[in-house]
Amino acid sequence: MLRTGISLLLCLSMAIASVGQDQRQLEKRYTKVPDGYLMVLRQSDNVFRELEAFMMKEKIPSANFTGMGFVNITFGFFDFKTKKYDPEDFAAVELVSMHGSLAWKQDSVSIHSHGVVADKTFRAFGGHILNATVGTGSVEIFITVHDKAFERKKDESIGADVLSLEPVK
Amino acid sequence: MLRTGISLLLCLSMAIASVGQDQRQLEKRYTKVPDGYLMVLRQSDNVFRELEAFMMKEKIPSANFTGMGFVNITFGFFDFKTKKYDPEDFAAVELVSMHGSLAWKQDSVSIHSHGVVADKTFRAFGGHILNATVGTGSVEIFITVHDKAFERKKDESIGADVLSLEPVK
Amino acid sequence: MLRTGISLLLCLSMAIASVGQDQRQLEKRYTKVPDGYLMVLRQSDNVFRELEAFMMKEKIPSANFTGMGFVNITFGFFDFKTKKYDPEDFAAVELVSMHGSLAWKQDSVSIHSHGVVADKTFRAFGGHILNATVGTGSVEIFITVHDKAFERKKDESIGADVLSLEPVK
Repeated sequence: MLRTGISLLLCLSMAIASVGQDQRQLEKRYTKVPDGYLMVLRQSDNVFRELEAFMMKEKIPSANFTGMGFVNITFGFFDFKTKKYDPEDFAAVELVSMHGSLAWKQDSVSIHSHGVVADKTFRAFGGHILNATVGTGSVEIFITVHDKAFERKKDESIGADVLSLEPVK
Repeated sequence: MLRTGISLLLCLSMAIASVGQDQRQLEKRYTKVPDGYLMVLRQSDNVFRELEAFMMKEKIPSANFTGMGFVNITFGFFDFKTKKYDPEDFAAVELVSMHGSLAWKQDSVSIHSHGVVADKTFRAFGGHILNATVGTGSVEIFITVHDKAFERKKDESIGADVLSLEPVK
Repeated sequence: MLRTGISLLLCLSMAIASVGQDQRQLEKRYTKVPDGYLMVLRQSDNVFRELEAFMMKEKIPSANFTGMGFVNITFGFFDFKTKKYDPEDFAAVELVSMHGSLAWKQDSVSIHSHGVVADKTFRAFGGHILNATVGTGSVEIFITVHDKAFERKKDESIGADVLSLEPVK
């Protein structure tokens, strides 16, 4: 009985996810404008995954972007001793500022982005974005496209990636 | 006697306001640059009213903008239960970041903008901008113009407006 | 003995500085992209000094920029009574947002820039940037170039500089 209930719930959630997926494919997430692209992400979209898919699909060499919206976000502060990010989550917050660059690391898209968020008390928090999904609202991103592909390379003196200005051949 | 004094004061303030108006009309608020427009607002200017007037006068299809300056500002945090913004005022603060988009809602200009401000202790506050006027300083806005008109439409699932990427015919 | 030690130390540090200088000259700090320039500053670079050198070397009429990175920074809050900035330093912080404009004041480059930073607790602080150097990381700046030279002029009514939209002849 319990097992049947669980199976039913699983089927139902898969059906809902599938409808969501169909709906998602019907709505476009970005459009071309003279200086680049305008992207509008919807509830539950993963910001970095959408930016990565955009880079691959439109064969973008590299780009800079700014954005704002409403998100669930994880910031990380880089610990130069452990070479790891100490993470912290902020749920259901306004994304009041986002800046970033889209480049490459070998054959993978490399996204570097910093954001500022504010909660219902309007206090602001910020940091290096590790992950962000759209909350009950949207995220608007304005992307300026460059004509050269840039790569991020590890700067051994600091143990962190730095954007190289030598275009990839 | 008191009445005469009040009348005099009224006349005087109207005269000052009128001179202010003339002065205001003589100073231009924006100029064309290759990627769009550069706008510089002055003390007491209302940021959204100036952006709206600019959209109408220059027949701008839609645009994105970034800005900074010194302001008196009202942020609002959207309450998804009541579908209303809970407002809070911040007076005489640095506008340290502003991002926004200029679009349409039927025949009216629709401005969506998020900002970050900082007071004399440098603590930062941010949110969805409901209203902003220039304080004892200026506000510099850099506007990138798009060639298509976009509309904001109510997303019934969240009860809030979302920018549609289908250009208005 | 002590004097010899000090002299040796001085020679050594001068030699290191000289190697640093050579290395620095070999690595380029910016590259042309369709809408302007992409600048990547490295550890110890002074942000304003690099922007100023860029303006002079590339004969840039005027520009707007956005940026992010990791910095040691000094913010200042303008006191309209004393007409001076009250400064405060923030060391080893993420630069989560930077907006600014590059213009002129007579024959000197005039930089106006506002920033937001966040420390390892992710709390955000912001203000008018008086000085900033790159920390253990980098600073990425995207510069949009305008075709006219604008000047900052003192607005006597507020005692502060305001960007004039009348292009310099």
